Amino acid sequence: MSDRVTASVVIVGNEILSGRTKDANLAYLAVNLVELGISLREVRVVADDQRAIVDAVNACRAAYDYVFTTGGIGPTHDDITCAAIAVAFGVPVIRHPEAEQVLRGFYEERGIEVTDARMKMADVPEGARLVDNGVSKAPGFWIENVIVMAGIPRVMQAMFEAVKGDLRRGPVVGSRSLSCAIAEGTIAAGLQDLQDTYPDLEIGSYPFFNNGRPGTTLVVRGTDKVRLNEAAERINGLIRSLGGEALPDRLD
Amino acid sequence: MSDRVTASVVIVGNEILSGRTKDANLAYLAVNLVELGISLREVRVVADDQRAIVDAVNACRAAYDYVFTTGGIGPTHDDITCAAIAVAFGVPVIRHPEAEQVLRGFYEERGIEVTDARMKMADVPEGARLVDNGVSKAPGFWIENVIVMAGIPRVMQAMFEAVKGDLRRGPVVGSRSLSCAIAEGTIAAGLQDLQDTYPDLEIGSYPFFNNGRPGTTLVVRGTDKVRLNEAAERINGLIRSLGGEALPDRLD
Repeated sequence: MSDRVTASVVIVGNEILSGRTKDANLAYLAVNLVELGISLREVRVVADDQRAIVDAVNACRAAYDYVFTTGGIGPTHDDITCAAIAVAFGVPVIRHPEAEQVLRGFYEERGIEVTDARMKMADVPEGARLVDNGVSKAPGFWIENVIVMAGIPRVMQAMFEAVKGDLRRGPVVGSRSLSCAIAEGTIAAGLQDLQDTYPDLEIGSYPFFNNGRPGTTLVVRGTDKVRLNEAAERINGLIRSLGGEALPDRLD
Repeated sequence: MSDRVTASVVIVGNEILSGRTKDANLAYLAVNLVELGISLREVRVVADDQRAIVDAVNACRAAYDYVFTTGGIGPTHDDITCAAIAVAFGVPVIRHPEAEQVLRGFYEERGIEVTDARMKMADVPEGARLVDNGVSKAPGFWIENVIVMAGIPRVMQAMFEAVKGDLRRGPVVGSRSLSCAIAEGTIAAGLQDLQDTYPDLEIGSYPFFNNGRPGTTLVVRGTDKVRLNEAAERINGLIRSLGGEALPDRLD
């Protein structure tokens, strides 16, 4: 598809790599990008390390229409995403006047001390525009095709909501999903034939065990609903021809 | 640390990128690698696409001591990890005699038909050795510094258990963790000073909200227990000096 829109996610955080924190942002972004017709093609999790962030962001912004980053934009010494993005783009970090005003107003209203550390959250790479944070005010930012968001899930979600109306959308990929109590090794040959018949669709096969018995969930994905329904019906027929029964487990 | 051992994880799977499946393997590998003294430095999630797998594996095997891949080694058309790894190493795919024997024995014993698709799971890149699968027999494999495992979590875990005794280990990184009801912006300056005092340790700061009130979890990580305890005590002192109280929430 020539009008396909692609994206990648770069998750910044030692805490994910050490196993201390389970990432919750990837699953949210994956589902929400599908709904916008944006194809998530790659995810990278990198350490709080400038070189690692720069390399990942530069590789991904060259390869995909959008890069979403999460994490590393708070006030402490280990929050280095803003500085790294500036290096990736070869621009200086500047204090954004509007961000400074928003943060000062927010803190003064609440009697919170305006520390140097807090004002660091008003810094952005030169040329970036702000991304609203409806939760705790400290903004994310958007520079060229890179959108920099917080790591805390509800803040990240608020930021994603703030930008999603401005994202370029592609054709929405729909899917049909059928499960059956047939092992992958039994249905594989027929599935290969179906995939060859429908090269415009993507047929995925996911094995599972149910009470020790093997089963398979088959997922067909594509942008053309008529073709999707047709392929799902063919998969249904394949399952029946092997003595099984298709259980539609998700229609999304 | 010159004796540091590093690793990366490459997760192969359209189902993770589409949001259909939540990955459960990263968290398992992250925690288990820490226990072996292996530093997980990067994770990539890529599509069921040969070029994407080859590029990710080649980049990671050049940069880290180990690469662990998960997913894409089953019998169906969308299982292309073995072929991709062979391309990455520039070697042909061969049928491994021992894997063939194990699989044939397993299927014949259970009266399961030996299909071409099932025997595809006996294929490995030339030069690879097998990784035992105590759950469903179809093996993973290990070639140079790349260890290829299944995507189903309990099969992946069985394969990791099968190889972990043969992995080179580094110094185990321990951690001390303290939480407090102090906002990051308040504690940031003192933390920066502590990080400067302990350049051999890694101090991470993770904000949270508790009933709408901001708090921070501070995690200090390093290989020297004496230094770790000393730094944790200093963080404790910092928290108290700001009128807070340290709540040790995890000692791991």
